Amino acid sequence: MQLYDLIDLDQLSTKEIMELIDLANKIRKNPWAYRESCRGKIMATLFYEPSTRTKMSFQTAMYRLGGEVVGFDNPQNTSVSKGESLKDTVTVVSGYADLVVIRHPCEGAAAAASLYSKSPIINAGDGGHLHPSQTLADLVTLYNEKGRLDHLKIGLCGDLKNGRTVHSLIRTMTHFPGSSFVLISTPDLALPKYVQDVMDAAGCPCTIAENLEQVLPTLDVLYMTRIQQERFSSREAYEKQKGVFVLDRAKLRSAKPDLRILHPLPRVDEIAVEVDDDPRASYFHQTVYGMYARMALILTILQSQGRPERKRAPRSTHPNHCSNPKCITQTERYLPRLFTEAGDMLLCSYCDGGTLI
Amino acid sequence: MQLYDLIDLDQLSTKEIMELIDLANKIRKNPWAYRESCRGKIMATLFYEPSTRTKMSFQTAMYRLGGEVVGFDNPQNTSVSKGESLKDTVTVVSGYADLVVIRHPCEGAAAAASLYSKSPIINAGDGGHLHPSQTLADLVTLYNEKGRLDHLKIGLCGDLKNGRTVHSLIRTMTHFPGSSFVLISTPDLALPKYVQDVMDAAGCPCTIAENLEQVLPTLDVLYMTRIQQERFSSREAYEKQKGVFVLDRAKLRSAKPDLRILHPLPRVDEIAVEVDDDPRASYFHQTVYGMYARMALILTILQSQGRPERKRAPRSTHPNHCSNPKCITQTERYLPRLFTEAGDMLLCSYCDGGTLI
Amino acid sequence: MQLYDLIDLDQLSTKEIMELIDLANKIRKNPWAYRESCRGKIMATLFYEPSTRTKMSFQTAMYRLGGEVVGFDNPQNTSVSKGESLKDTVTVVSGYADLVVIRHPCEGAAAAASLYSKSPIINAGDGGHLHPSQTLADLVTLYNEKGRLDHLKIGLCGDLKNGRTVHSLIRTMTHFPGSSFVLISTPDLALPKYVQDVMDAAGCPCTIAENLEQVLPTLDVLYMTRIQQERFSSREAYEKQKGVFVLDRAKLRSAKPDLRILHPLPRVDEIAVEVDDDPRASYFHQTVYGMYARMALILTILQSQGRPERKRAPRSTHPNHCSNPKCITQTERYLPRLFTEAGDMLLCSYCDGGTLI
Repeated sequence: MQLYDLIDLDQLSTKEIMELIDLANKIRKNPWAYRESCRGKIMATLFYEPSTRTKMSFQTAMYRLGGEVVGFDNPQNTSVSKGESLKDTVTVVSGYADLVVIRHPCEGAAAAASLYSKSPIINAGDGGHLHPSQTLADLVTLYNEKGRLDHLKIGLCGDLKNGRTVHSLIRTMTHFPGSSFVLISTPDLALPKYVQDVMDAAGCPCTIAENLEQVLPTLDVLYMTRIQQERFSSREAYEKQKGVFVLDRAKLRSAKPDLRILHPLPRVDEIAVEVDDDPRASYFHQTVYGMYARMALILTILQSQGRPERKRAPRSTHPNHCSNPKCITQTERYLPRLFTEAGDMLLCSYCDGGTLI
Repeated sequence: MQLYDLIDLDQLSTKEIMELIDLANKIRKNPWAYRESCRGKIMATLFYEPSTRTKMSFQTAMYRLGGEVVGFDNPQNTSVSKGESLKDTVTVVSGYADLVVIRHPCEGAAAAASLYSKSPIINAGDGGHLHPSQTLADLVTLYNEKGRLDHLKIGLCGDLKNGRTVHSLIRTMTHFPGSSFVLISTPDLALPKYVQDVMDAAGCPCTIAENLEQVLPTLDVLYMTRIQQERFSSREAYEKQKGVFVLDRAKLRSAKPDLRILHPLPRVDEIAVEVDDDPRASYFHQTVYGMYARMALILTILQSQGRPERKRAPRSTHPNHCSNPKCITQTERYLPRLFTEAGDMLLCSYCDGGTLI
Repeated sequence: MQLYDLIDLDQLSTKEIMELIDLANKIRKNPWAYRESCRGKIMATLFYEPSTRTKMSFQTAMYRLGGEVVGFDNPQNTSVSKGESLKDTVTVVSGYADLVVIRHPCEGAAAAASLYSKSPIINAGDGGHLHPSQTLADLVTLYNEKGRLDHLKIGLCGDLKNGRTVHSLIRTMTHFPGSSFVLISTPDLALPKYVQDVMDAAGCPCTIAENLEQVLPTLDVLYMTRIQQERFSSREAYEKQKGVFVLDRAKLRSAKPDLRILHPLPRVDEIAVEVDDDPRASYFHQTVYGMYARMALILTILQSQGRPERKRAPRSTHPNHCSNPKCITQTERYLPRLFTEAGDMLLCSYCDGGTLI
């Protein structure tokens, strides 16, 4: 398979995703065979917001392939603090490195970077928008721990409104036959409508629950997320409700023996420490699978031949500016304004946000 | 020799320490022969408090063996700042790396980490408690610069109360025949009683001095430490006394020609710059020996075969909590409470602190 | 060619500079042939002030030669914050590494470091004084993009007073036949007299202009620099004048078709983004050439055999202290006071600053 940038997991077919999962497993079973695969190659990690976990996973992946890593994780120490544009930073760094991994607080930043980069871009998180390598890690975990990616009943618990890993996992799982979902959350932290729409369009059954314990016995997979106190309307609301979404040994008693529990980590206290020794707890395995997923991703990109011709960045397709206040185009004003039309909406090609015409 | 974790140098026999010193010297004499020894291996450095010196020494050691390094040195940029427990961080990172080097402000942190790590742990300093690789560096230096580790009269000068390198060196040297000690300090900064007890139990002669110049002619080794102004009761006390503990060329005139001066560095002004060119000054050699000591340590650990089965963390042995306010168990409350009984005391298995039953 | 430290590009003959440029081009054309050239070697980067760009360029250069990198980029996290002297830090780190790259806010810091280092020193910027690897990058760019280094008419635009890259480029270009210069700036930001003197002494024609547009058609090379608002006497003066020094597509219309535009980067808005796609824009190529220039530099230094005997630091030649408030000798008081006499002036051997006798 040929892969250049990875901005959004949706750009891959189910077949291509399966190829990446297979490669991750091949590497996992015989890592020594790959330890020189990227010798002489350099990966840059441009982390405009800190994320040690993701960065260490990418770094380790590259080192285990024999490559090297440069980068920064604190824009205060960089040319960025002197007012340098994303375009200039990416142009320069992609001249040094064979691959650029970018994390940025603004939505659409990775797509913007890909317009100017001389090397492939991997999106390692653009604000609350996308985080495709995390989803790939989730899929490698599910495939290995459940033995399949189809016909899974997946419970998603916690903050479903702000959790980009949840949105991305749902979108991807709708492509596999027989997926069904149980959403366990408060009304305030419910899944956004556009993700709900994706499930509906794919015809995937979906149940809404406000109590983890009641639905737990029906699940094949439980995907837990961190639920932040500050997301609740008040401290009282938080104190009253948080227990409902905490997974502990008592609640697990009624769960299936082959349930698998995932969590993108870091956790705070939404999973009791006592659960860690339960054989159904897969969240620590998940980080190891994630490393192999990233190795597969890096290797596939660096071995792809038919790289697209890099040309000038495209011209603006519309005079409008994207109305999403978190979109990268709000701060990087030189970016061409790129949209696709969808009925009476313009969809921003960077952040996927909709703007009424 | 087989070695898994290195938490405390006391866990090694004198014979094993000599094996590590011999290996360090073998590497020092022929470094090129070892430059691929750890190719494909990854070491993680988890530095919960900054220490560039120690970190660079470990990093260089790993690179000179052909391995790679990942890690962090600023917990503010990490998942730790999101409230992640030591257990979770260590579990995840030890899933990425083949070896974990940890430095932490709390006493017992490395021992706690070893309960959950999937890879060997090296303690690179846990608060004021232990710093075994520094002591190993001291021993390699002494062995090479003095030609022996036995029958040495060792002066220790400066802040003997808070200097963990001093405590650790004394404890280790009591295992070698003929060691004797001269403690040069103020009453306020005197050696803690439990270290004094170790010397007494081993039958090592020990003299107490308040003046460096008077005892200097009798010494084989002078181990200097940084003496911090804020440790004195007042600025006047500091100004009055500091000169007594400053080593300069004048004081050295009466010292033995084969004296060796060590210092764990960084120094501030307790050794005058003019001493640097004296052939008895070994403190800069000491950092180079330290690098070879760490190479020997890393290599031994990564080549050890019979690694112990990793099981679940043990259960609490006592209902009590450790009473040492700096113990890692004070902040990481999920840790099992582990003690050994010694008379009417419980000795904490993490920080070695004593709690009355 | 044999090269140990690189403190100042002026220490190299024109022939040696051409050798470095040729090597940079050889590596550029066949990088794979060099990817193991520095295997097993370690470079330390001591960055006492942050500069991600320069650091990443050096790191990438070393990795592409097969070497490894250790270092720090934030003195707050280091022993420096405990009061350690430059001498001690350099002594220790040069005991770990085969090559030390240093950047420091004080003028003369690299020269000071070279007195104590056990390994070669590369000056990666000492305050506003020197930055030889940047100038080498500029020369590799000019040589490749113009086809020659002689008979070039070079415009230098922006802040010519504070731009060390400008000073260094002028000094070096005066050694090549037929160089002429056009200085485009305000009187407040004009070139310092001592650089003007270098040009005059070499007999290089030099024109002064206050308007970029007027002189642009005559230039072979335009070297742009960042012009900082705070350098102007008032905000009004800045607003009034900044447009004069901004390069945009309109101004470029009258320029030669083989003009080449350089900029040390980062830029802010002194070059309009629309210029980036102009084939005469060489400032992004310049960063790539810079990486190859640094590879040539590192390789030449690490392959040099006849390294000078490291002895003790020299003794002070004069009782005086350097009067330059930014000189490294102001803060590192143990440094020997080294001067050369020039008429009624003493020239500081660290910072090149003049002190009246």
